[in-house]
Amino acid sequence: MKNFILDVDGVITTGQFFYSKEGKKFKVFGPDDNDALQILKNVININFVTADSNGYDISHKRIVKDMGFELNLVKQLDRSQWIQKNYQTNQTIYMGDGILDYLVMQVVKYSIAPNNAHVNAKNASNFITNCKAGERAVAEACIHIAHKFFKTNNPFILK
Amino acid sequence: MKNFILDVDGVITTGQFFYSKEGKKFKVFGPDDNDALQILKNVININFVTADSNGYDISHKRIVKDMGFELNLVKQLDRSQWIQKNYQTNQTIYMGDGILDYLVMQVVKYSIAPNNAHVNAKNASNFITNCKAGERAVAEACIHIAHKFFKTNNPFILK
Amino acid sequence: MKNFILDVDGVITTGQFFYSKEGKKFKVFGPDDNDALQILKNVININFVTADSNGYDISHKRIVKDMGFELNLVKQLDRSQWIQKNYQTNQTIYMGDGILDYLVMQVVKYSIAPNNAHVNAKNASNFITNCKAGERAVAEACIHIAHKFFKTNNPFILK
Amino acid sequence: MKNFILDVDGVITTGQFFYSKEGKKFKVFGPDDNDALQILKNVININFVTADSNGYDISHKRIVKDMGFELNLVKQLDRSQWIQKNYQTNQTIYMGDGILDYLVMQVVKYSIAPNNAHVNAKNASNFITNCKAGERAVAEACIHIAHKFFKTNNPFILK
Repeated sequence: MKNFILDVDGVITTGQFFYSKEGKKFKVFGPDDNDALQILKNVININFVTADSNGYDISHKRIVKDMGFELNLVKQLDRSQWIQKNYQTNQTIYMGDGILDYLVMQVVKYSIAPNNAHVNAKNASNFITNCKAGERAVAEACIHIAHKFFKTNNPFILK
Repeated sequence: MKNFILDVDGVITTGQFFYSKEGKKFKVFGPDDNDALQILKNVININFVTADSNGYDISHKRIVKDMGFELNLVKQLDRSQWIQKNYQTNQTIYMGDGILDYLVMQVVKYSIAPNNAHVNAKNASNFITNCKAGERAVAEACIHIAHKFFKTNNPFILK
Repeated sequence: MKNFILDVDGVITTGQFFYSKEGKKFKVFGPDDNDALQILKNVININFVTADSNGYDISHKRIVKDMGFELNLVKQLDRSQWIQKNYQTNQTIYMGDGILDYLVMQVVKYSIAPNNAHVNAKNASNFITNCKAGERAVAEACIHIAHKFFKTNNPFILK
Repeated sequence: MKNFILDVDGVITTGQFFYSKEGKKFKVFGPDDNDALQILKNVININFVTADSNGYDISHKRIVKDMGFELNLVKQLDRSQWIQKNYQTNQTIYMGDGILDYLVMQVVKYSIAPNNAHVNAKNASNFITNCKAGERAVAEACIHIAHKFFKTNNPFILK
């Protein structure tokens, strides 16, 4: 397995948007997800994708500046095509949560949804985490990937 | 069915108000609700109503500016009358959560409450979503409406 | 019954404190609690008490300025004495959630705890709401008080 | 037992990081934890440790300035060694929640995890609180420590 592509909102955030009268101001990230990704990136290519243009600056600060991963802005309905054009889909894992993410899940080899994802995404997934988004769902997905595709019970030996 | 009228706080927000010493600063919106409404609006008129004057600017920014829907400021106890005056009630769906929303639910054709609504609202509703407010309750309501009143299993073909 | 005294944090807020590097910035209030108190105040004297001096400005803005109730700053361990000095305790209901609130509950006629209160407070209470703090626990307490002490099934007829 | 060392994020905070486009802005603390620690410190040395350098200013404001405890910035993978170097480990209790905290738990006498800790931390702990982090997990740990190591059913008599 070569690629692990993750949606941002509702996957590595809780999915919540904090609005002031000036607009979208905050997103909520949780523990362990970044730590687990920093280890897993030693064995698999990790990229993020988001459809949230209003909140792009917030996601960019966290994902690109602080965590050091690539972040692509791709509209939800363009995402299946985009993933097929840019990645070898039979070597790609996708993690998403939204009402339309099942469309992306149909074109990749393996897909993962957080426990509190939309039912469409959960039904289309190969693996559903026990954790909710923003409460270690991504960390759990990383460990699952390490076990399943890289045959280790200790993902922390990977590096 | 012609109209879908939604309360704001506790329906498309979590119902939480973030206060600083200067007053109400933030409300919390969640994933998928806007995406689902943007699709459903192709077949039904969608309007929002709020009794929250202190937090009106925040709601206005999200509902009117960002999402593009109409937002009316109507006091809770005036709401039944307002809805009867402005809408054909036997062609109207109302979604609310509060302690007094059952009064509005009594005058419309069909009503919906989020899973974590006040028990009064849940008892007076025709449909209670599995999702909580701010965790896709509105998205779930949109799909329910598409199935029940527009006879489609795939609301995304609607447009 | 003449008085209904409520603690602030963890009763009418979720109990959460949002800290920036400059200190305590936000508290979280929820739906319906204010609406229910505005109705109940027609039949009972309602006062708030808090031990949180750091966050006093935030509580004051919400409780005093926006909701119009009295707010007293009283240290947790002074609270039993304070309540005995200022209120006719056998005509007083107290609602609290904290680790030391059971001390106050022992000196009043009737006490209420939110569902997610500390176990000490729950054990010392006459009534535990089904709702959590910040998720209508105070609204539920108001309706309970209306039923139990003012013999009405419809607290909204009270005024 | 002489020392009680606590991790910060996900132990005395909810583990959530609120990001604006400028970066990490807020952490969320809950009720009773500080009150319980202020009592327990009369019988045991209490120190905090964090690996979060981005959010250090926020933690410092709350833990050091407001609560008055020592806070050390120690990377997660250096933490076992650090604790062995600075504390008498057979007289030390550690409370942690993260994916790698089990490494620290292996070198101390007694360890505690919040109910919503990572499964690795829970498996390596002697005691798991019923409360979640930011919802009185630390307060519950303090009472547990008072009962177990200082033989009192009323930790509030301690001082």
